[in-house]
Amino acid sequence: MPNSNHVPTIVIGRLPLYLRALTQLSAEGRRVTSSQELSEKLGFSSAQIRKDLSYFGEFGKQGTGYEIEFLEKSLREILQVHHLWDMALVGAGDLGHALANYDGFETRGFRIVRIFDADPQKIGTLLGEWRVEPIETMRQVLREERIHVAIIAVPAAAAQHVADELVEGGVRAILNYAPTTLSVPPKVKVYHIDPVAGLQSMTYYL
Amino acid sequence: MPNSNHVPTIVIGRLPLYLRALTQLSAEGRRVTSSQELSEKLGFSSAQIRKDLSYFGEFGKQGTGYEIEFLEKSLREILQVHHLWDMALVGAGDLGHALANYDGFETRGFRIVRIFDADPQKIGTLLGEWRVEPIETMRQVLREERIHVAIIAVPAAAAQHVADELVEGGVRAILNYAPTTLSVPPKVKVYHIDPVAGLQSMTYYL
Repeated sequence: MPNSNHVPTIVIGRLPLYLRALTQLSAEGRRVTSSQELSEKLGFSSAQIRKDLSYFGEFGKQGTGYEIEFLEKSLREILQVHHLWDMALVGAGDLGHALANYDGFETRGFRIVRIFDADPQKIGTLLGEWRVEPIETMRQVLREERIHVAIIAVPAAAAQHVADELVEGGVRAILNYAPTTLSVPPKVKVYHIDPVAGLQSMTYYL
Repeated sequence: MPNSNHVPTIVIGRLPLYLRALTQLSAEGRRVTSSQELSEKLGFSSAQIRKDLSYFGEFGKQGTGYEIEFLEKSLREILQVHHLWDMALVGAGDLGHALANYDGFETRGFRIVRIFDADPQKIGTLLGEWRVEPIETMRQVLREERIHVAIIAVPAAAAQHVADELVEGGVRAILNYAPTTLSVPPKVKVYHIDPVAGLQSMTYYL
């Protein structure tokens, strides 16, 4: 992967969207696509798409476009989701239930392996196939199981403490649903799910 | 607002993040900030931030930075969230419950006013302060109440039908939690909440 150290963060952020579109085309039985078609699906310009992909090699051929299966496989490898990442889910409330039942993780590189909560009423209960574990043991479990990815689905007031424990446990990527900004060391990545930012980006146009 | 017709979509998508950061600084009692400080908080370059904001006017002064309260108020107006948007929530499952209990909407320009579901077991039950209504009546209610914003929190298989009904009811902005792409007319905006895309944008770095 030439130059992959120098790829802008914003480009990396678009790769999952390309991968999602390719997987969808593939599911429709398609074998070849173009930057024009991806552009229409995703709303980025075709020049942008070609430039983004060119960071990682020569995927398209002039006049014939992109071979979907090959590009999909390559993007999975670049994003390191060609194998499954074990995840911890923190928070066994409504959102935790929804995430535990979400069926889109495994096909795209992730699986929940442990669920933690601070509420004594929830600890020990079953959530889907998982038994809810106490947050006090989380740090040790994360280290023993070498879990590096976690989802925070707790109230805003509890989120920073949870993040601190995750970092202590060796987690390096956090998907944060709590409506608050987390303070973590630079080596730890945080992706903030913010429904209101999504809504606000649409009301501009109304 | 000069040139606001020509602002790239990607710029509009960043404005809610600027607004969120400003609101946070404001809550910390701060009065002035800089593109450098916003850059550190958000991970975009300070040049990018200055350029984005310059689409909408002269907000910063050389050497003194941005006046937080004024910029925050301006961004609220640009994004049209200086008043509250009424929203319909479709789906009264675990995710619907989590969204109904989410306390980050009203302070940032949105409020749920109606909740719909297709499940006869759920219709008529209370979810927080709302009574769950049948999806069959949704189209008419949306039109009567002039609701233009909606959240889809139903399984993937049901999402397209729900989107069609929302569009028929006059909805023009859809926040989609279902793990599927929706087909809607060009005048309707869709923002897709995709937790796996967020996770994949982090595993690249692990």
